[in-house]
Amino acid sequence: MPGEFDLIEHYFAHQQPINNHVQLTIGDDCAIVDVPHHQRLVVTTDTMVEGTHFIAGANPAWIAHKALASNLSDIAAMGGRPVWCSLALTLPELNASWLEDFSRAFFSLANHHQVMLIGGDTTKGPLAITMTLHGWIPRNQALTRKGAQIGDYIYVTGELGDSKAGLEVILNRQANDSSLGQTLEKRHYVASPRVNVGILLLDIASAAIDISDGLVADLGHILAQSDVGAEIEANTLPLSNELLAYVAGDRQRAYQYALTSGEEYELCFTVPEHRLDALHRLEASQDVPFTCIGRVTASGVLEVYEHGRVLTEHLNGYDHFGEND
Amino acid sequence: MPGEFDLIEHYFAHQQPINNHVQLTIGDDCAIVDVPHHQRLVVTTDTMVEGTHFIAGANPAWIAHKALASNLSDIAAMGGRPVWCSLALTLPELNASWLEDFSRAFFSLANHHQVMLIGGDTTKGPLAITMTLHGWIPRNQALTRKGAQIGDYIYVTGELGDSKAGLEVILNRQANDSSLGQTLEKRHYVASPRVNVGILLLDIASAAIDISDGLVADLGHILAQSDVGAEIEANTLPLSNELLAYVAGDRQRAYQYALTSGEEYELCFTVPEHRLDALHRLEASQDVPFTCIGRVTASGVLEVYEHGRVLTEHLNGYDHFGEND
Repeated sequence: MPGEFDLIEHYFAHQQPINNHVQLTIGDDCAIVDVPHHQRLVVTTDTMVEGTHFIAGANPAWIAHKALASNLSDIAAMGGRPVWCSLALTLPELNASWLEDFSRAFFSLANHHQVMLIGGDTTKGPLAITMTLHGWIPRNQALTRKGAQIGDYIYVTGELGDSKAGLEVILNRQANDSSLGQTLEKRHYVASPRVNVGILLLDIASAAIDISDGLVADLGHILAQSDVGAEIEANTLPLSNELLAYVAGDRQRAYQYALTSGEEYELCFTVPEHRLDALHRLEASQDVPFTCIGRVTASGVLEVYEHGRVLTEHLNGYDHFGEND
Repeated sequence: MPGEFDLIEHYFAHQQPINNHVQLTIGDDCAIVDVPHHQRLVVTTDTMVEGTHFIAGANPAWIAHKALASNLSDIAAMGGRPVWCSLALTLPELNASWLEDFSRAFFSLANHHQVMLIGGDTTKGPLAITMTLHGWIPRNQALTRKGAQIGDYIYVTGELGDSKAGLEVILNRQANDSSLGQTLEKRHYVASPRVNVGILLLDIASAAIDISDGLVADLGHILAQSDVGAEIEANTLPLSNELLAYVAGDRQRAYQYALTSGEEYELCFTVPEHRLDALHRLEASQDVPFTCIGRVTASGVLEVYEHGRVLTEHLNGYDHFGEND
């Protein structure tokens, strides 16, 4: 069994693109990096723990993807450009094939987004991954949760609800053999964070957040910090064919998934009316659909309608500590 | 049981000094921070896991101190000035008194070093703490492990070996009732990272590292990266009265502790002869003693002598994965 240093060196020190802003990387007490003068630094941290964020025996490639994607999604929600990452990996044992799969998937997504691994720590213990991801945003520009104005249009990227359906499939293995189950399971683990969209929304959106706790909870953060309310029309929620198949066409049930599914890693953002043309031009340049699901209101609360009827079912977001209350 | 967000808010969002370089902190998808143009950023990450880095039931205040101190020590070893920290806390349950003690000790040390908590994550799982600490260093200045030259003098701060003795006391509770045992136990958990010394060594030292894996292992990193060797004289190693009492005056045994004790969070650094006067002036201004323990040589290996006799006993450093090999 190789020691800690050999391990890090072997799997994590040799697959890096060149980055002129990184002066010193893995192999000293700290990394040394440069932030260009016209940029600010955005910083986010996410932890994933076996048994809480993924099940024992989950595909290590998917774990790596999800851990980095959740951080990329936070950077995307600010309009940042991701640049560097620290990886803290706690492992019960040194398993070469696990590390091979994990590191390959990590570098695949990191290289795709030109993110350089600049350091971290490898420790022994129950399986867990903490990443701290750094990004740049231009000075005096940032998408925050504060800034939504009454009358703004509320948009989401992609489709909502698949991650929650995928999680049910994972926790309910008998459904997992179907091709539908496998597709939803993969969607739960392997999301595509909307990094380019976030950067391009800097000049368009008035507020933004990524959907990690569920649309209702995350839009709720925008509303609270912007001191506004919102009306959402449930029948505009973007639903995948797979989700509709999973709920056997029960649209009411599909709405519940779309409204509360955590770990979607889609963006929810608000757009003033005078920026809608710019938004439509942006949408035409991207692969991902944007869907208008409602408007910002003065009510101070989030109201969800279906054809004018208020939906009053449970709309709580995802809370790791609260989930068993 | 309050939810995740309330928890973070309550214990970690309201005890912060003002920092003009922090534009946005806890409560959005990312923090936004400014790095002054004449500074570079140094970044380090450390994880501490229950059962690996501290025992179950360890004092939460000491855990918090040690987790931050180990990161401060890495910044100190580069000559950096610590500025911001992300804290990822994985907890088996929400225990208010544990969180109270942990957060109070965290902010006590953080405020002492003017470190601002800018974000993090709170998750459910086996107790573990990952911190990513950021610091600044002036452009084109940094203490690295590379730079030791043949003939340079090798120094350490403070006293060595107490952390290992303290760990033995912790794992061997019967010895713990004595005042000596309690002192050593506290030294294991509550070290003082040499932040100011590191900053002031920027103009003096040719290479530096902090002693986290043991003097032999850590000095070994300097030698390997500087492509040099070293001779150390064991009877110059700085030993505390408590360590000498613990080993009942057996100096040979005390040397083993001083040479291999991990998690000391003292600095080991090399100084060219023409900077010795500056070093002595610096030492006179500091509370912590500096001790010359040897010289850098051309041999390519580390040789430890005691009055001219080579010490050949086990001199391995601390390796969490390798320790049970």
